[in-house]
Amino acid sequence: MTAEILTIGDEILIGQITNTNSVWIAQQLNQIGIKVVHMASVADDETAIIKAFNDSLTRAQFVFITGGLGPTKDDITKKTFSNYFNSPLVIDKDVLADVSSFFLKRDKTVSQLNQNQALVPKDCFVIRNPNGTAPAMWIKKQNTTFISMPGVPYEMKALMTDTIIPKIKTENALPHIYHKTVLTQGIGESALAELVETWEDNLIHKNIKLAYLPQPGIVRLRLSTSGNNLERLKTDVEDEIKNLNTLISKYIYGYENYGEETPPLQKIVSELLLQRNQTLALAESCTGGYVSSLFTALPGASRVFKGAIIPYTNEAKQQLLQVHEKLFNTVGAVSKECVEQLAQNVLKKFNSTYSIAISGIAGPTGGTSQKPVGTIWIAVANQQKCLAFKFQFGDDRGRNIVMTSNTALNLLRKFILNEVE
Amino acid sequence: MTAEILTIGDEILIGQITNTNSVWIAQQLNQIGIKVVHMASVADDETAIIKAFNDSLTRAQFVFITGGLGPTKDDITKKTFSNYFNSPLVIDKDVLADVSSFFLKRDKTVSQLNQNQALVPKDCFVIRNPNGTAPAMWIKKQNTTFISMPGVPYEMKALMTDTIIPKIKTENALPHIYHKTVLTQGIGESALAELVETWEDNLIHKNIKLAYLPQPGIVRLRLSTSGNNLERLKTDVEDEIKNLNTLISKYIYGYENYGEETPPLQKIVSELLLQRNQTLALAESCTGGYVSSLFTALPGASRVFKGAIIPYTNEAKQQLLQVHEKLFNTVGAVSKECVEQLAQNVLKKFNSTYSIAISGIAGPTGGTSQKPVGTIWIAVANQQKCLAFKFQFGDDRGRNIVMTSNTALNLLRKFILNEVE
Repeated sequence: MTAEILTIGDEILIGQITNTNSVWIAQQLNQIGIKVVHMASVADDETAIIKAFNDSLTRAQFVFITGGLGPTKDDITKKTFSNYFNSPLVIDKDVLADVSSFFLKRDKTVSQLNQNQALVPKDCFVIRNPNGTAPAMWIKKQNTTFISMPGVPYEMKALMTDTIIPKIKTENALPHIYHKTVLTQGIGESALAELVETWEDNLIHKNIKLAYLPQPGIVRLRLSTSGNNLERLKTDVEDEIKNLNTLISKYIYGYENYGEETPPLQKIVSELLLQRNQTLALAESCTGGYVSSLFTALPGASRVFKGAIIPYTNEAKQQLLQVHEKLFNTVGAVSKECVEQLAQNVLKKFNSTYSIAISGIAGPTGGTSQKPVGTIWIAVANQQKCLAFKFQFGDDRGRNIVMTSNTALNLLRKFILNEVE
Repeated sequence: MTAEILTIGDEILIGQITNTNSVWIAQQLNQIGIKVVHMASVADDETAIIKAFNDSLTRAQFVFITGGLGPTKDDITKKTFSNYFNSPLVIDKDVLADVSSFFLKRDKTVSQLNQNQALVPKDCFVIRNPNGTAPAMWIKKQNTTFISMPGVPYEMKALMTDTIIPKIKTENALPHIYHKTVLTQGIGESALAELVETWEDNLIHKNIKLAYLPQPGIVRLRLSTSGNNLERLKTDVEDEIKNLNTLISKYIYGYENYGEETPPLQKIVSELLLQRNQTLALAESCTGGYVSSLFTALPGASRVFKGAIIPYTNEAKQQLLQVHEKLFNTVGAVSKECVEQLAQNVLKKFNSTYSIAISGIAGPTGGTSQKPVGTIWIAVANQQKCLAFKFQFGDDRGRNIVMTSNTALNLLRKFILNEVE
């Protein structure tokens, strides 16, 4: 089964709000095996809406529509529904009662404008909205079912979850869709694609599709498939991932099962520390607090994160973290020696189990021929060991900060698991 | 002039990523007077892409396309471009040189897959990509110009800002659109709307439209107008802003002129410090590195930012920043006394002109009846003075961190300008 998602509203087209409804609806449909083939956003304009409806007739069995159901004049979805399906507007008594009680509860009187919210095309199946005044409407034309919902996210979500999705599942035999995403760090998209090329060309299960999803320092590789036997789909995907593992295991830091949220690296590291009752401290020069902010954004961060020192000047490195003064005139602050001293000393200062130290040239200026912009040193340490690594990233300051952070987080993950030397 | 925005990629349709590119592009187009009439997302599927291209021909003068330009097999936008415009793929020597130097800089060899990034339809105007390997392509069919860009946001944004938008402005006579945005901090959206209600109802220049753009701790109020006489538009907007100022001057921290990027508070503060040849250090407990990361994201941050200590435990506050031990058993770490000691001591440690100290309960847990989640203390200091303020924000951890950061930045701005006591 296929679906389209149509968002109606000028505020989307002028870029005033981000369309989060479509993402959420797509996720829900995917989980029940309905394939979204098209998403569109159009203005509160009858011609544009009708063109979109007509396109949908040829393309999808379901059209999920949000927006344009408010009581004000700029909202025309309901009127357009009535015209398009040739179905006059009539008062729905249940909805009228809902609207009245909605305002009574809030100690407000019900205006004529509000009462009009109870007008619905007479051939629609009406789905009452417990959180607002605009009901959802469900109507079929040819082989396509059109479902119109309010654009307010929490009203739409409740209608989908409580009524619309259960109704679709009851009325249709749906195939299963299964995804699993392999999370990699430390290898670029094209290098990864080359490493797995033979595997990709020789997939045992031909119905599995691949997608590469790059972020700075991270590439997620998604395997997707669909069919009638969910257990079989899972086994197929796991088979392929087993083979993939023989090729790229050293880059894999985790997996995302479909329906789960992506676990970011800082969360994976936090969980490892929490399980082991261990702690962390940071000395962040180049990344300037970014890695700390990733950890402290997590609820309960204080159970594993003891704190950080951000020694953004040589003076601060020397005075707050006892980096040897003469080092600045010899190897410089962006060096193995410097990050090792930072890592070892911040570990002592905070009395933590582990530490990370970062020093580098984020750019856009500050590079030299020996140390161009993007030169980064990272050290990880515990009481027994301190390991330092050099990286050469790109020219973009923001991207260098994020890549360095992801690289440092993965280094610490491997260090905790004894997977790095 | 009208435009469409087309996003290509399975990851959008299965709801794996939110489509932020479209919002950003819509905002940019809106600012130069191009009206976005349609947005769509389709799969990496030739039939779907071509159907979308054909629809665009009848609807818009420009089509902005993102995604599907990676080197891997799932990306087919370029091949589809070549077929649709009947223009065979040829190697672009400049792009090939760009791709080669991109990999050389990173000490990597250029594979055949990478070299293929330099293949472009021969009739395209090619726009070189300084941040990645996929160039943008610009080609006209009938009355519609199709512009294909990589989906990686920072690559796309640089191409739009540096090349594509200037080219569109040069080649087309666009009506003047003038915006000016009033930046406020310390007042919520609805409180602000009430304060300015009479002003809003009695605007002298009726063609000025208002939009409230809220962020945590900040509300931006945009005034927009359009017409043929740019000087007149400017004068009209300035007139209204003068009147607005009499009502809300104490919340205004700046303005965003049309065509400028919003100056974030950290940038405004950095500029103030730079002009005065002054410096800053931070003691961030509750915000955990977030404020530091805002400063260090700015190029040249080291000229004003000396560093920070993030004392996330009481122990660290005591040992690294000499907060008196007995304070923790009396007033606690979230208190006037604590932030004052943190601010004064971090100032000394880093020998900076100013300091900010933050301590609070970000949530979701850790609140008490006396100090519920969202209780935040902020102090600002220099050698002469130290001022501390208490705030009560909400329940959401992420939002509290951002609101606290914006509040602290504005406090420091006022402190530097002697506008706070």
